[in-house]
Parts: sequence; C-alpha cells; structure tokens
Amino acid sequence: MIYPEPLEDLINSFKKFPGIGEKNAERLALAALDAKKEEIEKFATALTDVKEKIDHCHICGHLAEGDTCKICKDETRDHNLICVTEDTKSVFSFEKAGSFRGVYHVLNGLISPADEIGPENINLASLVKRVENLENPELIIALKSTIEGQTTTLYIKKIFEKKNVSISRLSYGIPMGAEIDYLDILTLDKALADRKQI
Amino acid sequence: MIYPEPLEDLINSFKKFPGIGEKNAERLALAALDAKKEEIEKFATALTDVKEKIDHCHICGHLAEGDTCKICKDETRDHNLICVTEDTKSVFSFEKAGSFRGVYHVLNGLISPADEIGPENINLASLVKRVENLENPELIIALKSTIEGQTTTLYIKKIFEKKNVSISRLSYGIPMGAEIDYLDILTLDKALADRKQI
Repeated sequence: MIYPEPLEDLINSFKKFPGIGEKNAERLALAALDAKKEEIEKFATALTDVKEKIDHCHICGHLAEGDTCKICKDETRDHNLICVTEDTKSVFSFEKAGSFRGVYHVLNGLISPADEIGPENINLASLVKRVENLENPELIIALKSTIEGQTTTLYIKKIFEKKNVSISRLSYGIPMGAEIDYLDILTLDKALADRKQI
Repeated sequence: MIYPEPLEDLINSFKKFPGIGEKNAERLALAALDAKKEEIEKFATALTDVKEKIDHCHICGHLAEGDTCKICKDETRDHNLICVTEDTKSVFSFEKAGSFRGVYHVLNGLISPADEIGPENINLASLVKRVENLENPELIIALKSTIEGQTTTLYIKKIFEKKNVSISRLSYGIPMGAEIDYLDILTLDKALADRKQI
C-alpha cells in the first residue's frame, strides 16, 4: 500500500463519487489533509446531517427537512400551478432562475420500458391524487426531450386528458445565446417547426 | 435559500476544495444524499481520521501514521540514496512507478523569492543534518523544471558542494510516447541539448 491507511480510506471514499477518478480522488484527499481541522469537521458533520435530516417532501417528492418542503409550505406561491420535473436538480435550477411562482412535483425518475421503469415506479400516483384536490389545476411538464422524457410527458397528458386540467410543456428551441451553426440538427428542426410569429 | 440547510452546508464544504465549483459541488452533494448510509458514515470517519491520524514523518517530511513513515521504517531500502521531492504527491508517483528503492526527503515547498519563501521556510535544514549522518550519501533532486524548482535545485547543490555528496537531478527531455510536433519549444530545446549517444 502506497498511502497511509487513513488517506487510502479517504481516497476510496472520494472515488465512489460519480466522475471522480483515482488521480482526482488523491488530489481531493490531500486537499482535505491540508484543510483546517474545523473545516473538515464541518464537512464530516454536513455529510452525516444530509443523510439524517433530509427526506422527500410527502406532497411533491422534492427534498425536505422534515416531511414537507419549504416550497410546499410557502403560502405566497400559487398551489394550483404545478411544474412537473424529473428530479430535484431541476427544481433547484428553476428556483435559481427565480421567475416561477407555482409549486413543483418531482417524479424522481422517468418512464423507461427499456430499463423496466414503469409509471408505478416513479412518483406519479401522488400527482394524480394531488391534482384531484385542486380547483383550477394547471400542469407544466418540464422534462427533458429524450425518449423517456417524451414518453413520460405523453403518459401524464393521457392521465389527465379527460379531467379538467390545463397541461403544457416547456418549449423546445434554440438556447439563448447559442450559435446557430453549432446546434444539433434535431434542435434546429424543432426550432423551425415551432417558429413563432413576431 | 434554495437548498435545504444541511444540503447547503454540504455544498459549501465541497465548494472549498480546489477545482470544485458551484455546479459540481451540487452534483457531489446530491450524490452523497443518494449514497448508502454506511458509505457516507465511512466517508465522514475517513475525513476526521485523516486529520487526526496523519502527520509528517520526522525524518523525511512525507506523510506518516505516527512519527515515522513506512518508507523510512523500511530496512530493505537504501537509506544512503535520498530522492528530494517538492511534495508528498511526487513520492506517491515514484512509489507507483515502483522502481526506486532509496528513501525520500520531502521539502514541502520550493524556494520562491517572489512569494517570500526562502530556504528556511521549506524542509531543508533537516536534509542537511540527515546527510551529515550518512556514510556514502547520494541525492537525486526530483523537482519540476520551473524557476522555483531550478532555484531550489541550485541552492541544494551549493549547500553540499564541498561535502562528499553525490548529487544528480532527473533528466529533462521528451516524455515517453509523446508526439514530437506537440511538444513545447523549451522541452524540445532541452532534449536536443541533452541528447545521448546511442
């Protein structure tokens, strides 16, 4: 063994994270060794805290301290307007953008027959129940434009088709600031088909 | 605050590491949240252990559990042959390469007048004392070829000039497998000047 044992253990822990290889894990472990003791204690506490104190919100499936997330608790938000996302990361992105004043429903997955993930394996049943209790429900489906995202979008559309629910999805098109000649053909095709009168 | 507090704390801890930005820290913190509880507990323990159990070897300055490192304790190694490195990372690299059977001396820095780092600020005095107690000391200076590395190499050469110490430095030249036309001019110049008869 080349490393002192505690360092080897730390390198192995870092290596378990996605996208962190051998060399990077060594670099991070040595950085931890050089860091201030109180910083590392804070880090260790944060790690165990995150596992112990964070759970999924029982209403929307987003991350929450306790059983309800901050967003579902927020009475200034429009609880009739629900943005449906694949994961909590999408929620954080919308919240950083800051313009959405409705609430969310996090599926924590997408329907994917190839991976044997059906509608019953994602957080969908609770959405149906949730919408039933609303007066003027409006759903915005904010899923990525892969086969799984589109399958899930269509499935949700089908569920609520005959109910009085307004459903939309995010627009597809050219990202703001992108160079046209660097775009993939599919996006360009979509942007052309979905062109808007000005 | 967009994140639940424990998650925010963890993201902030990850962000303190060199080369980890906002987005990457969020990704890693969410991966920690998804990881198994026992993995995260192991990680937290490894973090505190590394700070508590690892120190610098009192002989060579390398990392050690206790006051002496494994390499200095190893009696099968040649203790007259000392490889002088800038940091512990270099030692790990040599040990991975696996062919060096001497011992090390880790300077934990390089002389850099611009940064007000003088010979007294690096682990050099202990090298002088160490060499004095050896019968046939041989030093291999394994420092990078920057101004700081070369300054430190020359300084060490000067210290031992009138003493009976054999001193060499690593060879400069073309890295194994590198394409000649991708090399920088300085390396190419050096490889030309240091050419070897075959």
